Amino acid sequence: MTTIGELGEFGLIARLTRGLPLGPDVALGPGDDAAVVAAPDGRVVATCDLLVEDRHFRRDWSPPYDIGRKAAAQNLADVAAMGARPTALLVGLAAPAATEAAWVQRLYDGLADECARAGASVVGGDVVAAEAITLAVTALGDLAGRPPLTRSGARPGDLVAVRGRLGLSSAGLELLRRGEDEPAELVRAHRRPSPPYEAGAEARAAGATALLDVSDGLVQDLGHVAEASGVRIEIDSTAVPVPEILGPGGLRHALTGGEDHAFAGTFPPGARPPAGWTVIGRVAEGAGVVVDGRPYGPGGWDHYRG
Amino acid sequence: MTTIGELGEFGLIARLTRGLPLGPDVALGPGDDAAVVAAPDGRVVATCDLLVEDRHFRRDWSPPYDIGRKAAAQNLADVAAMGARPTALLVGLAAPAATEAAWVQRLYDGLADECARAGASVVGGDVVAAEAITLAVTALGDLAGRPPLTRSGARPGDLVAVRGRLGLSSAGLELLRRGEDEPAELVRAHRRPSPPYEAGAEARAAGATALLDVSDGLVQDLGHVAEASGVRIEIDSTAVPVPEILGPGGLRHALTGGEDHAFAGTFPPGARPPAGWTVIGRVAEGAGVVVDGRPYGPGGWDHYRG
Repeated sequence: MTTIGELGEFGLIARLTRGLPLGPDVALGPGDDAAVVAAPDGRVVATCDLLVEDRHFRRDWSPPYDIGRKAAAQNLADVAAMGARPTALLVGLAAPAATEAAWVQRLYDGLADECARAGASVVGGDVVAAEAITLAVTALGDLAGRPPLTRSGARPGDLVAVRGRLGLSSAGLELLRRGEDEPAELVRAHRRPSPPYEAGAEARAAGATALLDVSDGLVQDLGHVAEASGVRIEIDSTAVPVPEILGPGGLRHALTGGEDHAFAGTFPPGARPPAGWTVIGRVAEGAGVVVDGRPYGPGGWDHYRG
Repeated sequence: MTTIGELGEFGLIARLTRGLPLGPDVALGPGDDAAVVAAPDGRVVATCDLLVEDRHFRRDWSPPYDIGRKAAAQNLADVAAMGARPTALLVGLAAPAATEAAWVQRLYDGLADECARAGASVVGGDVVAAEAITLAVTALGDLAGRPPLTRSGARPGDLVAVRGRLGLSSAGLELLRRGEDEPAELVRAHRRPSPPYEAGAEARAAGATALLDVSDGLVQDLGHVAEASGVRIEIDSTAVPVPEILGPGGLRHALTGGEDHAFAGTFPPGARPPAGWTVIGRVAEGAGVVVDGRPYGPGGWDHYRG
């Protein structure tokens, strides 16, 4: 097995970038001081996340391909959550010299395939030596001339709706923590979330007033909308789409589980949320998030509080 | 002393983003799923680097402010090396919960101040918990309607010229490794390089055919130009500007020392490189880099070969 230390930095980069498919938004791909990516409307949406081994992923729980898929997905979902179309990804990889080159290649295969799902391309990055594996992913996107869908636009009277599946990833994580891997659908949802990237364009077309992707948990993330918009968000738990496979404890996962990268948005009172969206509540005067009239918590994920 | 674990992820982000100055290119700053940055000519230049504690910086050698300055500088220099104007920085920080909040604040002060030197703004990022401190920096930039200055445009007959100081950072690193901190100018150059960001615009205006920033060492980095352009680069060592403070061993540092983020470019035979640039050689038919007619090496830095 060849290690990345044997390949060296430049050999590894050459190998990883050789097969990368570059979409029409890529004016200049990997290999220079920087990449050049189309930003058709004269603005670019940009976001970045760090993923640290044994905190955001475990090599004994996920194959490298799935780690790549998930790392790309969570950043591409952030771009879509602005109402934008993802265009490009930059990937920084810190890894020990003893890491197998084939493992890294599969990681990049996963990154590239998830990009393809979203219509984006891996355009560049960096590889460095480190004790632990850390991934730094930056995603770029295009707003097509429309205002970004921020967290601050929700108004009292708006409807709250979600798109995508909730709670599967966190239920899958609980299984893995118990050393189980069935039902496979839940474990797969944790390893390889499948954000419905089209949700961003759908929400924008339907006149959404605010939008985000659910990365830390529905209640916690809607709390960011409540805070940024200066409103209260009221959730009706009976309206929350709880995947049947979650069984009796499903509502807790759907309300507090992160990493499915479903989308949650607010829509003006008269608007009809698009097909595929489920209305789960409304926006009111006040502050915070209530479920069935009561504060719900604690839930969700704080990287330092765990 | 407050630690970042005591502040929590969201408390830390709130503190770090509160005072960030946002320039005119920032359409939407930190606090949402993603930032929105101007890309006036319909394209965006994008690059990212990872910096790992004890490999790219040492907390006992550099104060956090300088680590921030340097992390920003090396990415902003990559943008300038495309002939672009830096516009924005995204910063991912992985750090132990026990890290002092004041340390992180100074790091961000350094990032923001170096951005200001280059005309850019810190627009977003991520903070996560980890064993070691790792910084992931993404820089964006604008080409103002001009083609990017890549590494592949050098042609036989072109002049090779450099802008900025060479060798100081590597000489400073040698001092730190020996436990010395004088001459202070050298140690300071290692801790806080000062790339002449205007070099990108200068080179472009003078008709440069290729450009890069010297991050791994002059000979090694010009090797990338030779390879990408399919040419040989001939350096005349007597023409290389060796800072006087480097003394007798200075040429070695100037030829192989990285991290000063000087700029090296090639210019058409008839062109006069702009003021501040020093001609150090020429481009010929062939391959590789020669110094005074002989191959020079090994030198420069490979993250896996060290």
